[in-house]
Amino acid sequence: MKNAISSRQNPIFKRVRDAIREHDGEIVIEGPKQVADAIAAGWKPIVVAERGEQAILPLPDRQAGLPVVHFTNELFDQLSDTRSPQTVLALFERPHHDANEILARRDTVAVALDAVQDPGNVGTIVRLAAAFDAAGVLLLPGCADAYGPKAIRASAGTILNVPVANITAHDLRDAKLIVADMQGEAADPPGRDAVLVFGNEGAGVSDDIRRAAKAIAIPMSKRVESLNVASSAAILLSRSFASR
Amino acid sequence: MKNAISSRQNPIFKRVRDAIREHDGEIVIEGPKQVADAIAAGWKPIVVAERGEQAILPLPDRQAGLPVVHFTNELFDQLSDTRSPQTVLALFERPHHDANEILARRDTVAVALDAVQDPGNVGTIVRLAAAFDAAGVLLLPGCADAYGPKAIRASAGTILNVPVANITAHDLRDAKLIVADMQGEAADPPGRDAVLVFGNEGAGVSDDIRRAAKAIAIPMSKRVESLNVASSAAILLSRSFASR
Repeated sequence: MKNAISSRQNPIFKRVRDAIREHDGEIVIEGPKQVADAIAAGWKPIVVAERGEQAILPLPDRQAGLPVVHFTNELFDQLSDTRSPQTVLALFERPHHDANEILARRDTVAVALDAVQDPGNVGTIVRLAAAFDAAGVLLLPGCADAYGPKAIRASAGTILNVPVANITAHDLRDAKLIVADMQGEAADPPGRDAVLVFGNEGAGVSDDIRRAAKAIAIPMSKRVESLNVASSAAILLSRSFASR
Repeated sequence: MKNAISSRQNPIFKRVRDAIREHDGEIVIEGPKQVADAIAAGWKPIVVAERGEQAILPLPDRQAGLPVVHFTNELFDQLSDTRSPQTVLALFERPHHDANEILARRDTVAVALDAVQDPGNVGTIVRLAAAFDAAGVLLLPGCADAYGPKAIRASAGTILNVPVANITAHDLRDAKLIVADMQGEAADPPGRDAVLVFGNEGAGVSDDIRRAAKAIAIPMSKRVESLNVASSAAILLSRSFASR
């Protein structure tokens, strides 16, 4: 029987709670599978927190002096903002990636997001970048944080496998930019050596990007004006992967 | 200067609020553009509600005896569960479509959803069905209601243009079923005369459907186990459209 922490004043509880709120220096991954996958991929958790007094993570993940604490059910559930709270979460250092390394890859494409505000869209696109072997996800100003809880959840455990970096439009000055645009040419995007840029949910990509980019149209019914940004990303990234 | 309704006891207010909660006999479309589009497409609103005392819908939409009421800002904002509430909403009769008519179309594909629980996913797939001219969206048991507020919002104004009907697996017994499955053949889905079935966010499609269906794999990295259901739908529906 373990002693589960029950106090909101506990320093580990406060540190996890702050990481969920601020996801600044440290971030939180939720879910037994997601935490186990991160550990299996070589990420070292600062601490793993389990709900209640029982061990939850499967045994192989518990080796090598894994730092585990237990929160009472009541305390653990205060950490979740969803209706279906998880039973395990883990605190990790927030990863730092270099935009230039992402842009330097010549064997695949990179993804850039321009003021994509919905964290669910950002996380879904991180998952797509993993699925279609993109070099990484570059966040232009105005995007939701890819390391916030909603984005991490939408990334379905892929957030630690995909390099993410903040950039400005200036950083893209030498890249071959591709945007999805109904007025563009109906062609597949390149498989490599290009940046696919996806824009804000309402306004699309900014004018500077649009002027510098090649526009590719996704063939679709004339009855519809646009696709959801994550749907556009799914279609173009899958076509880019197929032509690689 | 109009007299804006301020009372929560007002019968029109209560009817709109009940339609948002229950979306049973009547449903609510939010947003000036979405409401204007629905009216332009020939749908007759039971009532249009505007926020505050000013007219908001553009003039052409106000013709032909459009029934408009005004709610005070405070009252109107009680109707929204989002952080960015709209300024116009309209009450419509809930559409009723016949699954057999959707299945009878031979010139395109239909979409079926099997226990897709997230209303955002259901609404996003309705939008994709509109974008890629699918015959309609068939909801197997366990799906979120396509006419609930979150699903309608995710459909981005397309909900009234896409036939939606509830079905059971038995209704699909004569259809050519296609499912996305990593173990399947890497091929494009047919352009017509088939039903593309997408499954639950965690469990995928049910065993009965899986056994009866042809499995198609979306080529992707081996590092990732699956795609978000709406991402899979985006990719397969766009490929179906391209081969039509």
